Amino acid sequence: MERFTGQGASPGIAVGPAAELADEGQAAVKKHVDDIDAEEKRFWEAQSIAAAQIEKIRDKALKSAGEHEAGIFDAHRMLLMDEAFTREILDTVRREAVNAEYAAALACDKFSTVFSRMDDEYMRERAADVRDVAGRLIKVLGCGGEEQNIPEVPSIIIADDLSPSQTIQLERKNVLAFVTRRGSSNSHTAILARTMGIPAVVDAGVPAGAGGRMAVVDGSRGSIVLDPDEETLEKAKRLKQAAEDRRRELSEYKSLPAVTRSGKKIRVMANIGSLSDIDAAIQNGAEGIGLFRSEFLYLEGRTCPSEEEQFLAYREAARRMDGKKVIIRTMDIGADKQADYLEMDREENPALGCRAVRISLTREDIFRTQLRALYRASAYGNIAVMVPMIISVWEVKRVREIMGEVRKELEKEDIPFRNMELGIMVETPAAALTADDLAAESDFFSIGTNDLTQYTLALDRQNAKLERFYDPYHPAVMRLLKMTCDAAHKAGIWVGICGELAADVKMTEKLIGMGIDEMSAASGMILEIKKAICESR
Amino acid sequence: MERFTGQGASPGIAVGPAAELADEGQAAVKKHVDDIDAEEKRFWEAQSIAAAQIEKIRDKALKSAGEHEAGIFDAHRMLLMDEAFTREILDTVRREAVNAEYAAALACDKFSTVFSRMDDEYMRERAADVRDVAGRLIKVLGCGGEEQNIPEVPSIIIADDLSPSQTIQLERKNVLAFVTRRGSSNSHTAILARTMGIPAVVDAGVPAGAGGRMAVVDGSRGSIVLDPDEETLEKAKRLKQAAEDRRRELSEYKSLPAVTRSGKKIRVMANIGSLSDIDAAIQNGAEGIGLFRSEFLYLEGRTCPSEEEQFLAYREAARRMDGKKVIIRTMDIGADKQADYLEMDREENPALGCRAVRISLTREDIFRTQLRALYRASAYGNIAVMVPMIISVWEVKRVREIMGEVRKELEKEDIPFRNMELGIMVETPAAALTADDLAAESDFFSIGTNDLTQYTLALDRQNAKLERFYDPYHPAVMRLLKMTCDAAHKAGIWVGICGELAADVKMTEKLIGMGIDEMSAASGMILEIKKAICESR
Repeated sequence: MERFTGQGASPGIAVGPAAELADEGQAAVKKHVDDIDAEEKRFWEAQSIAAAQIEKIRDKALKSAGEHEAGIFDAHRMLLMDEAFTREILDTVRREAVNAEYAAALACDKFSTVFSRMDDEYMRERAADVRDVAGRLIKVLGCGGEEQNIPEVPSIIIADDLSPSQTIQLERKNVLAFVTRRGSSNSHTAILARTMGIPAVVDAGVPAGAGGRMAVVDGSRGSIVLDPDEETLEKAKRLKQAAEDRRRELSEYKSLPAVTRSGKKIRVMANIGSLSDIDAAIQNGAEGIGLFRSEFLYLEGRTCPSEEEQFLAYREAARRMDGKKVIIRTMDIGADKQADYLEMDREENPALGCRAVRISLTREDIFRTQLRALYRASAYGNIAVMVPMIISVWEVKRVREIMGEVRKELEKEDIPFRNMELGIMVETPAAALTADDLAAESDFFSIGTNDLTQYTLALDRQNAKLERFYDPYHPAVMRLLKMTCDAAHKAGIWVGICGELAADVKMTEKLIGMGIDEMSAASGMILEIKKAICESR
Repeated sequence: MERFTGQGASPGIAVGPAAELADEGQAAVKKHVDDIDAEEKRFWEAQSIAAAQIEKIRDKALKSAGEHEAGIFDAHRMLLMDEAFTREILDTVRREAVNAEYAAALACDKFSTVFSRMDDEYMRERAADVRDVAGRLIKVLGCGGEEQNIPEVPSIIIADDLSPSQTIQLERKNVLAFVTRRGSSNSHTAILARTMGIPAVVDAGVPAGAGGRMAVVDGSRGSIVLDPDEETLEKAKRLKQAAEDRRRELSEYKSLPAVTRSGKKIRVMANIGSLSDIDAAIQNGAEGIGLFRSEFLYLEGRTCPSEEEQFLAYREAARRMDGKKVIIRTMDIGADKQADYLEMDREENPALGCRAVRISLTREDIFRTQLRALYRASAYGNIAVMVPMIISVWEVKRVREIMGEVRKELEKEDIPFRNMELGIMVETPAAALTADDLAAESDFFSIGTNDLTQYTLALDRQNAKLERFYDPYHPAVMRLLKMTCDAAHKAGIWVGICGELAADVKMTEKLIGMGIDEMSAASGMILEIKKAICESR
């Protein structure tokens, strides 16, 4: 029995045989070539085959995971055909009289190094795309386009790093867990694993040659055991069983409405961060999307997302939720979520800086584009808008004004839209303290407890050194929650909660007692919350 | 007429002849010396003379400006006699067979460069000390110790940069304003100017040869006019006169108690940042010190201030205030005030980080030293303690516990002390919202409106880009002020205000209406506030 550790990237326990997936970019041994023209021709052929492969995978991704996932492969295809990348390879072939595999490996190193040194998490992750594309090209050059052998029985997938094209080819039923030796909790594999509900450990110290051995993976603790002894195996199976029992027990709540023992109905909705999270929301019986973070659109690209790009994403969400409410939060960039192209100044305290609605009202061009996309999508389902970081009544009024202007534009252009409710995030002490004034201007409230607590306590909860001073149940926060609920109901609007407190089932009864009408949390917590609601007075 | 601009460093208008003070370190031309032993001897003699000069200035500073100011010259003397500095000069003389002036100039460059490159505002300012000491040494070497000619009629002092020893030699009555071509608003000259109530402009684009010309200086706008035309001169004189009339009018309030028209007595106290601010507090009729920021003790040195050092400072304040209350705030390090020796981690959001009482309760050794010094000083006057950044009741209880332990220690050691009131700063939404609970554990409240507003609005008020979103009169802040006043009075304790709102005379009547018992502000604002109180209902 051998134990290894890594970084837990997606929770859950898996028990089963390990299957090692080879790194795709390792077959490029340097060879001298005499006929350079023939080598060039070989490259062009390989490029065509690789492009066709990518298109096939793209179509598969589009069906199984949606437009966003498919977009990754559009990017791969562009990179494969990229002139600079192609020229780099052919120049090396010609200059050094070497094989195209080797030249492609060199180009891969060069391009991926450039990306991996960038001062931006997103751009660093793009290095993996370069390796993916180059690896595919090298493989086609070497074996003529046969795809990699993937496990045909349920297995724990172990690899140095999984490329998006590798993961998309894996059958869901044959993947018990992912273990990668590289990667971070923001890597493609990690995000995919969480979306699919598969345990994953990244940055794992697992040695080569694990394939075929029995393994136990704990995705919460980030631990891997190879050749587990009887006791370890039994314990893992018990834990796995307990989790499954719990899941089964909770699944009863999927079709039940969330009603307290005294008969109050609470709406339970899902927080999502991209289109790929929608499946999990539906599977867990979400009554709608209580918080759709639109940031992914702003953080993934190198420029502001176009109106069309946003429209397609919002429409997709509205359609897939099939008439259920989808509350889309306007961009919450700033603080720990920076988009370089906005060229924001470096701030001393980003959490107290130019973020969220402050950017929207400063850069109205960007905000209008988002609102146009939202209104256009509104025709295809039940969309509501929610604005983050509101502190003053004039801000809400100004947002309403701009929304009115956008509607007039669309009317002139004969573009169909529906009216959308306008809600605000109550996530600053200022908003909670003046909730009565704000309620008069808003269609609903959604309380963001994470930021609200941070500002009320003047304490960054991500700062581990301050744990002793942090208290998520601080009476000051509780008082602000109560004030917000009271003000909302007095004005006749509903109030939801979408921060971490919504997923804290110890608090469910208390929150209902305060008057919360809606709870929105990560899909994995929805059934737990429903159960807690049904057990509340 | 020529106009120049700089950075306004101390407000006020001055009209008068300009006097140019030469930079002290410019006379060190390189000369070959044959008799190196004689040159060494010449150096030792000059060092003695310079040391004697510094001591004389030190004594003058002690009398005119207090211990803190005098401490600068203690540091100068130490630097002058410093072994490394001395060795550097003598090594150059011997190695290169050059004159001591030149060697001292080289050593000056070397040492001041080291300081000026340090990643710390305080240490960078120390480069000026090195230049001051080296300049003096060079001057003594050159002319045998004659002091620089300083103006003997009231003048506007213009210089590249003023050294502490230059400024201390100037007669107060002969200085109408300071204008320096270098320096920041934190430089010695700027701080001194504000303390002495003299207009100052730093980083000013004034050309050489301004000496002897007529000048107008506006220390608020940071403007300088040389050879003003009649109109400019008249306007400046009018503004100066208006300011003087205002000052005379206000001076009537110096001896009057601050009582509203309906008979409510409000205490008006001074905010001070060091001992050198006390004179101004007394001169402006402060009824006590409402906020003595103890940070200067922590930010000026390269290590934590010793108990003795702190004790001397606190005792001095207590003695000079002669029985009037001196409320000393325990260290408010962190956020924008960093002390390198504490080796704090770089934080993503320092304003929400490990600061103030969070450091005190994490580094109890440092806190106990401060409390010991405070208790020892308490025997010499009327000292109260105030703790910044409180958010929870347990923090106040823990502070009380530690205070009790410190008292027991002192009793055992037979050191006299008095009991001190323990107040808290109400400067977080959490504190204001739970003011009822905190009032039960506190002897008084002092509301810090700057931080309170910043956290309530989740907005860094120093961020110029957010001006549109900032509102010092935000209703949420007003509600927190009212809550705090109500809670204090219900518990039978008094509540003061020491943030910028206290100095905002448009708010005086409103604050009194809320129930504020005490207002504490910069000494320059005290009479304005008294007037506003007397005119309030």
